[in-house]
Amino acid sequence: MQTLHIVKIGGNVIDDQERQNSFLKTFHSIKGMKILVHGGGKSATEISRKLGIEPKLVNGRRITDEETLKVVMMVYAGLVNKEICAFLQSLGTNAIGLTGADANIIPATKRAVKEIDYGFVGDINIANLNPDILSKFLEMGLVPVIAPLTHDGKGNMLNTNSDTIASTIAVLMAKIYNVSLIYAFEQKGVLESGEVISQITNKTYTDLLKDGIIKDGMIPKLTNSFEALNHGVKSVIICNYDDVAGITNDNIHVGTRVTL
Amino acid sequence: MQTLHIVKIGGNVIDDQERQNSFLKTFHSIKGMKILVHGGGKSATEISRKLGIEPKLVNGRRITDEETLKVVMMVYAGLVNKEICAFLQSLGTNAIGLTGADANIIPATKRAVKEIDYGFVGDINIANLNPDILSKFLEMGLVPVIAPLTHDGKGNMLNTNSDTIASTIAVLMAKIYNVSLIYAFEQKGVLESGEVISQITNKTYTDLLKDGIIKDGMIPKLTNSFEALNHGVKSVIICNYDDVAGITNDNIHVGTRVTL
Repeated sequence: MQTLHIVKIGGNVIDDQERQNSFLKTFHSIKGMKILVHGGGKSATEISRKLGIEPKLVNGRRITDEETLKVVMMVYAGLVNKEICAFLQSLGTNAIGLTGADANIIPATKRAVKEIDYGFVGDINIANLNPDILSKFLEMGLVPVIAPLTHDGKGNMLNTNSDTIASTIAVLMAKIYNVSLIYAFEQKGVLESGEVISQITNKTYTDLLKDGIIKDGMIPKLTNSFEALNHGVKSVIICNYDDVAGITNDNIHVGTRVTL
Repeated sequence: MQTLHIVKIGGNVIDDQERQNSFLKTFHSIKGMKILVHGGGKSATEISRKLGIEPKLVNGRRITDEETLKVVMMVYAGLVNKEICAFLQSLGTNAIGLTGADANIIPATKRAVKEIDYGFVGDINIANLNPDILSKFLEMGLVPVIAPLTHDGKGNMLNTNSDTIASTIAVLMAKIYNVSLIYAFEQKGVLESGEVISQITNKTYTDLLKDGIIKDGMIPKLTNSFEALNHGVKSVIICNYDDVAGITNDNIHVGTRVTL
């Protein structure tokens, strides 16, 4: 099996053009097959405000109404995705920007309304996904750059969490490739008293949760990581943007390695 | 050689959701390999205004400055392109939205500054284009949906005329396919005293120009058409959005056929 690196980047790097380009140079240096999944960044909120669309929150949760959906389509698929693709092309990486609607790579379902109506938000059922088209793109030497949007098959785009897209694509592609999933973010890894925890297993995770060392946004990241490992992904690493290049060198240990 | 239909649609149909969806159903009904090239529509101007970016004109020509480029990237590649792709997917057409930066399908050059600095506007040299990736997409059953944006290979996206993109892609693909290029717009064809001119040749074109029957925006469309025919494109038709389905039926004559 060939190795496939799937790297997910979040908002912090996208909001800073210089850091984004510096990261993309690092990403460019990763040899072999690779996929980049990006988040949204803060510009969607800024552009919404300028257009007079105030963020809608219900019980502290963000709602994607019709107007907000248009803004995230514009910012994620139009601005962020194409800036990344144009810059990668300038380095010689043959990037192809995709949303879940393009070539139907990520069909999804509009989230069912229970206590909260989240609006145009997509939930993915991996059973509906097929790795063939992405695999053909990789074999053609293309580097998919995936925006955090899916579609419902009824003509609507859907706003979708980028961590979830990354882990879903990782599990999907693990049917064909030796997949290494990398969550790149602003810290050096998962931290305990300022020090990077070099490895987290199923067992130590339970303890870290209990002791309140892992909390907030790190919880879904780790839940996604274990979910991916349980479904065939070979390796999950949580590390700093700048350390992504070291991932492909077995002699360098960077960030936090998540294992079963 | 297999037949490939390349259909270009303009702003009028994009500005009206109902007409756009009606056209897309017609486009969906075209059998065999096909590519859709779309223009921008008026929403870029509206969204620019809402964001406080006033259209910049020099000698009556529109200028794409850095702020305007961001808006057209958002509207063309993010909003218009993805709405079209999601709707085509709902019909069962496996659309893939692309700009010139994606898979490097249309490298271009930022227009040289002479009397006017047009800003981030792309000129295409067909010698730099390669039909292989688009051809592989078509063979995979994908239907490319191309937004009017190219890139300069230096990290910048470029605003590019959609009629030019359509005729360039037509000439490029004519190396491999029997290409039929269709300019779909709001009229029934090229009109003379309200009647559709069923055929325009090199010779009749000169007369129609002289008599002032062909003028304004129709001139570059016809120049592009003859350019395409001179470079291997088999057929060029200028017709109404609703008549595109008839194109594939040899027994039905729709719109204006341009021939050498």
